Amino acid sequence: MLFMVQMQVNIPASIDKDTADALKKNEKEMSQKLQREGKWRDLWRVVGQYANVSIFNVSGNEELHQILSNLPLFPFMTISVTPLTQHPSAIAQID
Amino acid sequence: MLFMVQMQVNIPASIDKDTADALKKNEKEMSQKLQREGKWRDLWRVVGQYANVSIFNVSGNEELHQILSNLPLFPFMTISVTPLTQHPSAIAQID
Amino acid sequence: MLFMVQMQVNIPASIDKDTADALKKNEKEMSQKLQREGKWRDLWRVVGQYANVSIFNVSGNEELHQILSNLPLFPFMTISVTPLTQHPSAIAQID
Amino acid sequence: MLFMVQMQVNIPASIDKDTADALKKNEKEMSQKLQREGKWRDLWRVVGQYANVSIFNVSGNEELHQILSNLPLFPFMTISVTPLTQHPSAIAQID
Amino acid sequence: MLFMVQMQVNIPASIDKDTADALKKNEKEMSQKLQREGKWRDLWRVVGQYANVSIFNVSGNEELHQILSNLPLFPFMTISVTPLTQHPSAIAQID
Amino acid sequence: MLFMVQMQVNIPASIDKDTADALKKNEKEMSQKLQREGKWRDLWRVVGQYANVSIFNVSGNEELHQILSNLPLFPFMTISVTPLTQHPSAIAQID
Amino acid sequence: MLFMVQMQVNIPASIDKDTADALKKNEKEMSQKLQREGKWRDLWRVVGQYANVSIFNVSGNEELHQILSNLPLFPFMTISVTPLTQHPSAIAQID
Amino acid sequence: MLFMVQMQVNIPASIDKDTADALKKNEKEMSQKLQREGKWRDLWRVVGQYANVSIFNVSGNEELHQILSNLPLFPFMTISVTPLTQHPSAIAQID
Amino acid sequence: MLFMVQMQVNIPASIDKDTADALKKNEKEMSQKLQREGKWRDLWRVVGQYANVSIFNVSGNEELHQILSNLPLFPFMTISVTPLTQHPSAIAQID
Amino acid sequence: MLFMVQMQVNIPASIDKDTADALKKNEKEMSQKLQREGKWRDLWRVVGQYANVSIFNVSGNEELHQILSNLPLFPFMTISVTPLTQHPSAIAQID
Repeated sequence: MLFMVQMQVNIPASIDKDTADALKKNEKEMSQKLQREGKWRDLWRVVGQYANVSIFNVSGNEELHQILSNLPLFPFMTISVTPLTQHPSAIAQID
Repeated sequence: MLFMVQMQVNIPASIDKDTADALKKNEKEMSQKLQREGKWRDLWRVVGQYANVSIFNVSGNEELHQILSNLPLFPFMTISVTPLTQHPSAIAQID
Repeated sequence: MLFMVQMQVNIPASIDKDTADALKKNEKEMSQKLQREGKWRDLWRVVGQYANVSIFNVSGNEELHQILSNLPLFPFMTISVTPLTQHPSAIAQID
Repeated sequence: MLFMVQMQVNIPASIDKDTADALKKNEKEMSQKLQREGKWRDLWRVVGQYANVSIFNVSGNEELHQILSNLPLFPFMTISVTPLTQHPSAIAQID
Repeated sequence: MLFMVQMQVNIPASIDKDTADALKKNEKEMSQKLQREGKWRDLWRVVGQYANVSIFNVSGNEELHQILSNLPLFPFMTISVTPLTQHPSAIAQID
Repeated sequence: MLFMVQMQVNIPASIDKDTADALKKNEKEMSQKLQREGKWRDLWRVVGQYANVSIFNVSGNEELHQILSNLPLFPFMTISVTPLTQHPSAIAQID
Repeated sequence: MLFMVQMQVNIPASIDKDTADALKKNEKEMSQKLQREGKWRDLWRVVGQYANVSIFNVSGNEELHQILSNLPLFPFMTISVTPLTQHPSAIAQID
Repeated sequence: MLFMVQMQVNIPASIDKDTADALKKNEKEMSQKLQREGKWRDLWRVVGQYANVSIFNVSGNEELHQILSNLPLFPFMTISVTPLTQHPSAIAQID
Repeated sequence: MLFMVQMQVNIPASIDKDTADALKKNEKEMSQKLQREGKWRDLWRVVGQYANVSIFNVSGNEELHQILSNLPLFPFMTISVTPLTQHPSAIAQID
Repeated sequence: MLFMVQMQVNIPASIDKDTADALKKNEKEMSQKLQREGKWRDLWRVVGQYANVSIFNVSGNEELHQILSNLPLFPFMTISVTPLTQHPSAIAQID
């Protein structure tokens, strides 16, 4: 089941640099693990912003929330979720 | 070069059904031709809306505008364009 | 899988009364069929508006879109969809 | 009398972890007490957000405000309230 | 139980003048009946707009929706409803 | 002359509790003095929010601004002002 | 008593040209009469828009609403009203 | 050349009282100097807000920006600028 | 003096094709005349929209409004105007 | 390939003056280097705001993001990006 997720990162200045760097390192590792598992299907940077557009392929709402709420940067992100489905004109079939 | 494009369709009631059907048929054909060419990389329906989320892979702004402005439903769509680029945590490389 | 769906109805004045009445009658029948099947779990009127707040219990995005896009009033509704999941403080378990 | 209540939680970074944990523990206990009493009829997590969608079944505006304004996290939540009523197509009757 | 209700009237140009005049006359009569009954507690014009700010004193959500949805101008109004309750600094007691 | 005033209170966490309590106590006293004088005609709590809806009956813009800008919580409130006037369907006459 | 009033004009295409011209001619005459009386204190065009920014000097809310709601273009304008008062740094005194 | 300028002041709590008082005193002096020179043509307080509506009469964009960006409170203001011009119905001529 | 002007075109379906074509032809001619005169300094299409971003170099507000309000498509455009001035980091000097 | 970029600067008060000055100095140098290279084609100040409107001429999304995300003030700016293309009525050709 596919979802578009838009994440805007805003790490407050009160977080010291070492903590922020550790958060970003862990975020990257967790993100890449999820990409390798096929759950974080696509991940793109939005030009000019500390933000991304992502496509998740998960079993449903529960799994998506578990993934997003466990991201190290979750407390510092504004997230919006858009449920997607098969488009009648799309050649590719959502598996 | 990747762009996320969000299209919201709103065909006014003053368009008669035959015209609307012809527009939609042409839209579908053009959309599938562009998908086969690899330019309309992804096309998903937004759940509960007459709208889509799409990813285009084009040579740049000029080509993207030529594609979008020539879609049969272009006069009846609200379109927003978000330029995307490689995310440092993404495993896949934008070609 | 649960989704909150908010529907705002706006039947244009150009629709004649008989057509509108037939649409509303069909909408009611389809809505009640879906309620009896347990898919349209809750349906409430928003006070002072021609609008509703609904909870759907469906197998996923695909089924939800099939249901919503086949509602007789779909062309005349503004719809927003919010994916829901188990709350850690909730006593009731989402089945 | 039913109300949909949407709560977005935003605990500022200046609140230390112990205080925040105690607030959340008390919030959970009060929430579950109100659920057992049937006043907090439904409680769902919004996917991807530190937010919930809730349905309250209370005697009226006064009781709803007493409940909400006494929640331990009340000072850290953005709350919106939507009054609901019986929908003419709903099979279930609001008691 | 008190509610603030804000109504913005927008009668489309396609409604002929006689129909509009009849609607307004009926609206005025129903409004004054409800004021005499004490249910439409206050009714003020917003300066510079075809809009009003009203305070309703009703038994609850159900009665408020019955009143609002039966107003002759209901199909032509944008309505927002704000539930009110006793303010701790108010001298007057809501009865 | 009547005005609807909507006040949203937001006391920052950096204000210590004693100062906040003193501000609220003074606010309450000033509010009740103005209510007794008939200038703060109505004061209601908005359900679920640290906010109020008020009706002021003052000699004009100058007096309203003097009252509002001298409230102890003025620096911590977002205020909107809506000028009101006699509604042609209102039974009660604005004095 | 001063008010800033912002008016955005939107005459629908369904109004024929003669009617529109008559409305504009009457609007101009009424506007100039009010300017000569000192009630419509200032009238400026917003660059690039069919809109104006105006300052009214009237006895209060009642008079302002009478003036605005009797303008020939009132049914075709979106109007916002901002009450003004003496600024403590202003050299000129509002009379 | 006339411009409407709307300024909303928001001095953060982290600015100590003496600094804030000095800023306001300097702001007032500079504002009155500009009023005497005829450049800050009008200055009004918005009722219920720490905000003003102003009309500037300057030689153009460059001079307006020099004035606004040199105001002592500039770093603490949200400013919007609306270019104005002669209205065809205005009796007074912009000089 | 420079201004950024954003124009969104929306020709209603009620305008017949010949009239629309004539409007667009006249718009193009007037636009190119103004470009040749150096007043319409830059004109770009917004990707995916029937809209443009333009830079005007004019003597002031009056001239800009005369130009914009005389464009053949003016009645069918939503226009926003942003006054610009020399940036302290810009190498090029606004003449 | 052209993009309009709008940048709004907001340096938090917690940044000390020396750090802020160094950031601004570096920003200016990098901006002027990019202008000399022809990549930052235009840079204008927005009147009355700590903001700019810019036109970038770059090879595509990737280069634009590299430029913007490496600006010294990037962490303190709200940035929006609008892809532009040749306008059919423009005399100048985008190279």
